[in-house]
Amino acid sequence: MSEHRETLTDLLRPRPFAERHVGPDDQQLTEMLKALGVSSLEALMDDAVPARIRAGALDLPPAASEADTARELREIAAENNPLVPMIGLGYHGTVTPPVVRRNVLEDPSWYTAYTPYQPEISQGRLEALINFQTVVADLTGLKTSNASLLDEGTAAAEAMTLVRRADRKASGPFVVDADALPQTIAVVQTRAAAMNLEVVVADLAQGLPDGELSGVLVQYPGASGRVLDPRPVIEAAHERGALAVVAADLLALTLLESPGELGADVAVGSSQRFGVPLFYGGPHAGFMAVREGLERHLPGRLVGVSVDAAGRPAYRLALQTREQHIRRDRATSNICTAQVLLAVVAAMYAVHHGPDGLRSIARSVHAQAVALADALREGGVEVVHAEFFDTVLATVPGRAAEVVAAAREAGVHVRHVDADHVGLSTSEVTDAAVLDRVLGAFGVATDAAGSVGDATPGTALPHALLRETDFLTHEVFHSHRSETSMLRYLRRLSARDYALDRGMIPLGSCTMKLNATTEMEPVSLPGFADLHPFAPAEDARGYHRLIDQLEGWLAAVTGYDEVSIQPNAGSQGELAGLMAIRGYHQAGGHGERDVCLIPSSAHGTNAASAVMAGMRVVVVKSAADGAVDMDDLRAQCEAHRDDLAAIMVTYPSTHGAYEDTISELCEVVHEAGGQVYVDGANLNALLGYAKPGEFGGDVSHLNLHKTFCIPHGGGGPGVGPVGVRAHLAPYLPSHPAHPVAERRDGIGPISAAPYGSAGILPISWAYVRMMGAEGLTHATAVAVLAANYVASRLEDHFPVLYRGHHSHVAHECILDVRGITKASGVTIDDVAKRLVDYGFHAPTMSFPVAGTLMVEPTESEDLAELDRFCDAMIAIRGEIARVEAGEWTPEDSPLRGAPHTAAAVLASEGDRAYSAEVALFPTGPDPDKYWPPVSRIDQAYGDRNLACSCPPLEAFE
Amino acid sequence: MSEHRETLTDLLRPRPFAERHVGPDDQQLTEMLKALGVSSLEALMDDAVPARIRAGALDLPPAASEADTARELREIAAENNPLVPMIGLGYHGTVTPPVVRRNVLEDPSWYTAYTPYQPEISQGRLEALINFQTVVADLTGLKTSNASLLDEGTAAAEAMTLVRRADRKASGPFVVDADALPQTIAVVQTRAAAMNLEVVVADLAQGLPDGELSGVLVQYPGASGRVLDPRPVIEAAHERGALAVVAADLLALTLLESPGELGADVAVGSSQRFGVPLFYGGPHAGFMAVREGLERHLPGRLVGVSVDAAGRPAYRLALQTREQHIRRDRATSNICTAQVLLAVVAAMYAVHHGPDGLRSIARSVHAQAVALADALREGGVEVVHAEFFDTVLATVPGRAAEVVAAAREAGVHVRHVDADHVGLSTSEVTDAAVLDRVLGAFGVATDAAGSVGDATPGTALPHALLRETDFLTHEVFHSHRSETSMLRYLRRLSARDYALDRGMIPLGSCTMKLNATTEMEPVSLPGFADLHPFAPAEDARGYHRLIDQLEGWLAAVTGYDEVSIQPNAGSQGELAGLMAIRGYHQAGGHGERDVCLIPSSAHGTNAASAVMAGMRVVVVKSAADGAVDMDDLRAQCEAHRDDLAAIMVTYPSTHGAYEDTISELCEVVHEAGGQVYVDGANLNALLGYAKPGEFGGDVSHLNLHKTFCIPHGGGGPGVGPVGVRAHLAPYLPSHPAHPVAERRDGIGPISAAPYGSAGILPISWAYVRMMGAEGLTHATAVAVLAANYVASRLEDHFPVLYRGHHSHVAHECILDVRGITKASGVTIDDVAKRLVDYGFHAPTMSFPVAGTLMVEPTESEDLAELDRFCDAMIAIRGEIARVEAGEWTPEDSPLRGAPHTAAAVLASEGDRAYSAEVALFPTGPDPDKYWPPVSRIDQAYGDRNLACSCPPLEAFE
Repeated sequence: MSEHRETLTDLLRPRPFAERHVGPDDQQLTEMLKALGVSSLEALMDDAVPARIRAGALDLPPAASEADTARELREIAAENNPLVPMIGLGYHGTVTPPVVRRNVLEDPSWYTAYTPYQPEISQGRLEALINFQTVVADLTGLKTSNASLLDEGTAAAEAMTLVRRADRKASGPFVVDADALPQTIAVVQTRAAAMNLEVVVADLAQGLPDGELSGVLVQYPGASGRVLDPRPVIEAAHERGALAVVAADLLALTLLESPGELGADVAVGSSQRFGVPLFYGGPHAGFMAVREGLERHLPGRLVGVSVDAAGRPAYRLALQTREQHIRRDRATSNICTAQVLLAVVAAMYAVHHGPDGLRSIARSVHAQAVALADALREGGVEVVHAEFFDTVLATVPGRAAEVVAAAREAGVHVRHVDADHVGLSTSEVTDAAVLDRVLGAFGVATDAAGSVGDATPGTALPHALLRETDFLTHEVFHSHRSETSMLRYLRRLSARDYALDRGMIPLGSCTMKLNATTEMEPVSLPGFADLHPFAPAEDARGYHRLIDQLEGWLAAVTGYDEVSIQPNAGSQGELAGLMAIRGYHQAGGHGERDVCLIPSSAHGTNAASAVMAGMRVVVVKSAADGAVDMDDLRAQCEAHRDDLAAIMVTYPSTHGAYEDTISELCEVVHEAGGQVYVDGANLNALLGYAKPGEFGGDVSHLNLHKTFCIPHGGGGPGVGPVGVRAHLAPYLPSHPAHPVAERRDGIGPISAAPYGSAGILPISWAYVRMMGAEGLTHATAVAVLAANYVASRLEDHFPVLYRGHHSHVAHECILDVRGITKASGVTIDDVAKRLVDYGFHAPTMSFPVAGTLMVEPTESEDLAELDRFCDAMIAIRGEIARVEAGEWTPEDSPLRGAPHTAAAVLASEGDRAYSAEVALFPTGPDPDKYWPPVSRIDQAYGDRNLACSCPPLEAFE
Repeated sequence: MSEHRETLTDLLRPRPFAERHVGPDDQQLTEMLKALGVSSLEALMDDAVPARIRAGALDLPPAASEADTARELREIAAENNPLVPMIGLGYHGTVTPPVVRRNVLEDPSWYTAYTPYQPEISQGRLEALINFQTVVADLTGLKTSNASLLDEGTAAAEAMTLVRRADRKASGPFVVDADALPQTIAVVQTRAAAMNLEVVVADLAQGLPDGELSGVLVQYPGASGRVLDPRPVIEAAHERGALAVVAADLLALTLLESPGELGADVAVGSSQRFGVPLFYGGPHAGFMAVREGLERHLPGRLVGVSVDAAGRPAYRLALQTREQHIRRDRATSNICTAQVLLAVVAAMYAVHHGPDGLRSIARSVHAQAVALADALREGGVEVVHAEFFDTVLATVPGRAAEVVAAAREAGVHVRHVDADHVGLSTSEVTDAAVLDRVLGAFGVATDAAGSVGDATPGTALPHALLRETDFLTHEVFHSHRSETSMLRYLRRLSARDYALDRGMIPLGSCTMKLNATTEMEPVSLPGFADLHPFAPAEDARGYHRLIDQLEGWLAAVTGYDEVSIQPNAGSQGELAGLMAIRGYHQAGGHGERDVCLIPSSAHGTNAASAVMAGMRVVVVKSAADGAVDMDDLRAQCEAHRDDLAAIMVTYPSTHGAYEDTISELCEVVHEAGGQVYVDGANLNALLGYAKPGEFGGDVSHLNLHKTFCIPHGGGGPGVGPVGVRAHLAPYLPSHPAHPVAERRDGIGPISAAPYGSAGILPISWAYVRMMGAEGLTHATAVAVLAANYVASRLEDHFPVLYRGHHSHVAHECILDVRGITKASGVTIDDVAKRLVDYGFHAPTMSFPVAGTLMVEPTESEDLAELDRFCDAMIAIRGEIARVEAGEWTPEDSPLRGAPHTAAAVLASEGDRAYSAEVALFPTGPDPDKYWPPVSRIDQAYGDRNLACSCPPLEAFE
């Protein structure tokens, strides 16, 4: 020790976070490289990544330690100034029940869970989502709710397209309430423009505008606070053969009659104020519910009740054939992302409070608004609407800016409506003292009048609309009033599920890697959690610093010129990117360019997004090796030389291969006048080695959960930034409520909030900050090494379908089970479900190729876990061999019986062709075994017998 | 709604937190009262609590909402000013790995767990503790470590008594290093004075003082930073027949040779700097390790490896017969509390970093100290010691106060040793920038010299003491380098355990009630977590405000005049209370009063504490009804009229009954010149109804985890405040480093830190703040109702042993199994273990009466859970009936087979007299079943084959 000549600074250099993020340590890496016969990580990457696309090192700040990053994020959070939020407009103060915050939002067993595509090991979150659907269906008075949408604005836009789908003959514009939330109107307009639909914004207090219409959207209560009786508009729409959509506030619906009861066909909205932090705009769970008969048109995910092999009720995603991974360009929407984690929070808020608690919160919110309006009137301030729920619109001729500024001084953010009007929304976090301060900002003397707390407020709800129908009658909303009971309920649900905190989730294309605690913790800081999205820029300095840096870093690593983090899901990023292309062509006088080439191997969302962006989809064939068929590409480019808008290509391809032809492909398309959209889904195989913005891409969207550690949260939240080269930058998303100067003309907003899911951006920021250029590059190489290692260990047991440059796979590999199925009768499902008995989540099934499994080990799994997985797959292959040998029929094999619950195994003693040990402990006794709570679920039964809200308790008996 | 005349303030009154804390809602309470035939809660309490002791309402501030309480605690935390801690003295800056903070410290599955007395359902935390013991044993180089002690000071005091126990013939003083931590010296002196032992503080650099000695304690490294070679002292002590204790710093031991290797018999210390926040002094896990041959003298808990019924390795507490619940006044110590939660954190810090990581942290801490010393010398400041690990003692004649003040201005807390000396301790949280600031405070120009970061520090460790022995070679310290792996390891362990987050833990006398999230969250706030215990008072304003309020509230609810929260466990509170009595008698010239009367039903700690306080224990008999035998009491008082010091009595008694005679008992004892010590263990049955300080008590200690919601944490932390009437107040604990003016002469410190486990006091503060007088009183009544409800439902199945006033039980009840055992052969153990199969933690076994179960349902369990428990007990009684009927022998019954693991049941198919369903699913299939990881554990085997560190992996094969 006495001999080292390192400086103290050298000695104090913290251990890189990359060593915590990356699973295999140096010794394990050496072992893995040796197994592949490769000399070093660099040699592997030199060999695997085509030289033509190799890029220089990443230009990022040096990696910071976990402690320094946490400190820096606390400082950034402190630069935000979350005053009491009374701006309203669909974003309200709310109290997240601490037991829910700690045991859902901050609990890895919830936030590291994957989308519940394997329902047998996702029963906990599926039950939570059924609760969510029940909350929405009950409160909206409509039969079927989906499991959440991205936000209220996109939900309204989806309603607009639903209305068209539900009645293909419908024509005429979609009429939107002038008193709808301004961002809702803007998102609907953006989306309508893309699809060449007409939108008319009308004052519905005057009734429906004359003429044809495809549908109408009524905001209930309105953005101005007014509670308009929606019935006349709904009835008029129905008379003219159009559907009626009501955008509603869930809390108001505890006191106001439900849209369904009033005749609405569809209801949309946000569940934010049910305990989900403001998060400067998101993530929050939007929702959509529909009346009977419209279920199959619902976009997004839908949880339904079915039965398992033992005939017991079990939850799973229903009507999946609506989704884009099946229907591609004929899908109901490009949204398969939901906001599961936030929907769970909202559902648990309802479970925690029950109907009485919710009503009581609503009553106190309303009473505050009434008292506020009374005091204003008494103080000589005119209040515009006599009937309202939580929002008071005050008239202050010429004085609005002054009142808003005074309120800010008094610690309250209020809504600056226009020069003469101020909006004031009460909520769970306002109280008499806050109202007194607000009244002071109006110059209404409260000293003389005393506190507004002494008022005895009446009601300002229209009598004709008072709610008479019941809601949340199911027992689950009446059983967990104590925190003890609530805690156990949450734990019981999460214990049913297999998430990343249990073991590997080797999902190809979905990248389940570490969501580190240091990345997650800042999300709960009040500076990030409690800021209203329309707070003035001077109170959001921390967010702006963080967003500017993150957008800059994302541009740097992708080689693009500008990045927008507004899209709050990959699907929205795709849409934004395609709309930028469309805007560019239109601005250049080439509005006729509307063909989007999509390789046959592409993710279904690509096609669905292209349709939503108003493009026509033309499929490009794949060659035998899985790569894009360059001959067909050339032919298509030639055929569409005049109307080619773009190609959407994923790189590395969805086959998990680095294709040699990508540079040439970009040239061919550019030469034909098209733009190149590089789907950034697989950016985690490129980071540090190649930059789409440099090797030919004009635009890419990224999925921050894949490459930048946003947790899946059981199927959302997501963040889908879009990066573009400079010529497309003017066509990035904009927003009417963007609190800083508009940076571009833009295509309008793609998300309801100016910065989308701002509240979780600290996660990706922290990841980049802690990894630095070197760490990110190392992670890429290890991800590729791990995929090649798995491919190499398994290829003698399951054929590896595609390989790319120099016969390497990229960051994932496809195991072909088709031949095995043909020979043995054992299906891909059997293998996937049997993996549960071995203690694993299944890989991605039948994507991108039916009958195959796609495995993405990621850089975060260490060698022990990789080997445990490979051993399990090899053991399963051995079981299949016994079927092939005739020892078991496929039906009698443990593969078909999987997954095995303890109860089912005990009940079938004597009826099984294999022992209980084989069923439950295929690798030997394991005290830490994950026990699936249900047997294999009958998918078809559930779709035939659609039931999407909480089943009665008797069903479980 | 329009008719209510409530004011807005009325309407906004938040739902009382008490409704979340108390399990049964109004409807359930009505049902329970009806079952008991009682008209109201008040009627029940009027009937149950003797009128003579009833007290007035509690004088507390009105209940605050959860949100307001959280806000207030954030404000209080912000009043503390945790600068960079360089004060040292056994408390050091450390980085809690975020994955450990979130998934241990902030995770209910760890913090709501009970002490692992039921080892089959505690394997996770037992493994974590085995890791802790391995860390301590490896680093100290001694064979056996216990599972933690309360802090370093008490560990040193325990070492002093161990030395006496180990050699009963030993005489002469216990010699303590003058360079030991000052608070260690003071705690040892306090405890020695109590037991009439002699302590000599000596400069060991001069060798051992002449004359006899019983043992010696060497601090390694010393408080001054000096690293003295302990070998000469150890050898000299051994030559004189005395044992040698080394108080060591675990981090230093990664570089310095271990005490064991140097010849020490015992090592003590604190594991705080292994990732445990400073917490203004605690809770932290102290430790003690001993060489072979001294195991049976180790105080505290010891985890050992044994085997389960299937012959597989399983962990459980070893050598329990040493503990005071068995040995009472002949116990090794009064400490049965450990600091499990903190020991788990320290162990996981070692798992997270591994030996290389720890060495590297130690090297960088040392290099900083060397660079600092070099720079000081270069700047003309004399450094006292040439050899040190992390602490530099600088000589600044007459300038110490000025330097300390300048350092504080520069954001660093340094040690003010005396007028001429300043101490500087480096740590994991100091860095070159901090050192530059400190140098600036000395006036050492760093501008000219550049940053200390440019230095190339050598070493200042004595060459002869460089560590050559290996440590942490077990695989667990080499397997979890990635956060993914670490997260899964933590989750795997917690999933093995049954804690309050799964279901009821009906432990009589231990009160497992809700630890609410709002109570727990503030513990992580940097203002509470990161403050050094010897920080100046002006930087600890928040803590002082919180502590003053909490002490005031505790005095108000107990009826005492003054309270000290210093004792960091109930056992220490007892000791402090008894020492106050002793101090009082001595000051009054009655030093001869040394007899402590203890009823035969008392908790064993009472007797052990009395011995430690230098008293002689005299047992008072119980009458047939379980109450204190008043005739015997009178006789004993008469017999000890001249030497009676006190009586220790628990009220309600440990039999769970309100005894009518308490007032009379107090009078009799007082009349005989004795003081009345009311053990406050069962205060949760009194709060709001009676105050020990008013009905005759002179002193009480409380257990904050029982009545005031400190979580058990798997067996610690604890807080054991002591409350006294005014005449005893001068004899409360004091502390040499008390940062505010001494409030009393005191008996010296009872804990190493001035405010004991200060870091968790926000939990109890929040509980009182949110419950208010009404809530606390309601909780008491519901706890009593619940116990009477359970007693009533079960009494036809299991006799209820004792009842008190008006035949009610208090907050718990004793179920007598002795008759059943006699008739059927089914033991108390069988019932307890069978409850696991039914999804419950067992009640308290064989305390206070052998062969019985004591059940305390608490106020937090709702009726559904109470009934589930009663149903399980009744079903088990039914199984016993089948044994009585001869259907099963006891040996062949599912009671003896319990608990059943899945693997064991599968393996025993055909050999069992009952079905697998009966074994595993006695109440029917349950997808949420808790699966015990091991079968019944052989206690005796483990004690015969003592093994207390991580077993080799092959053991599990």
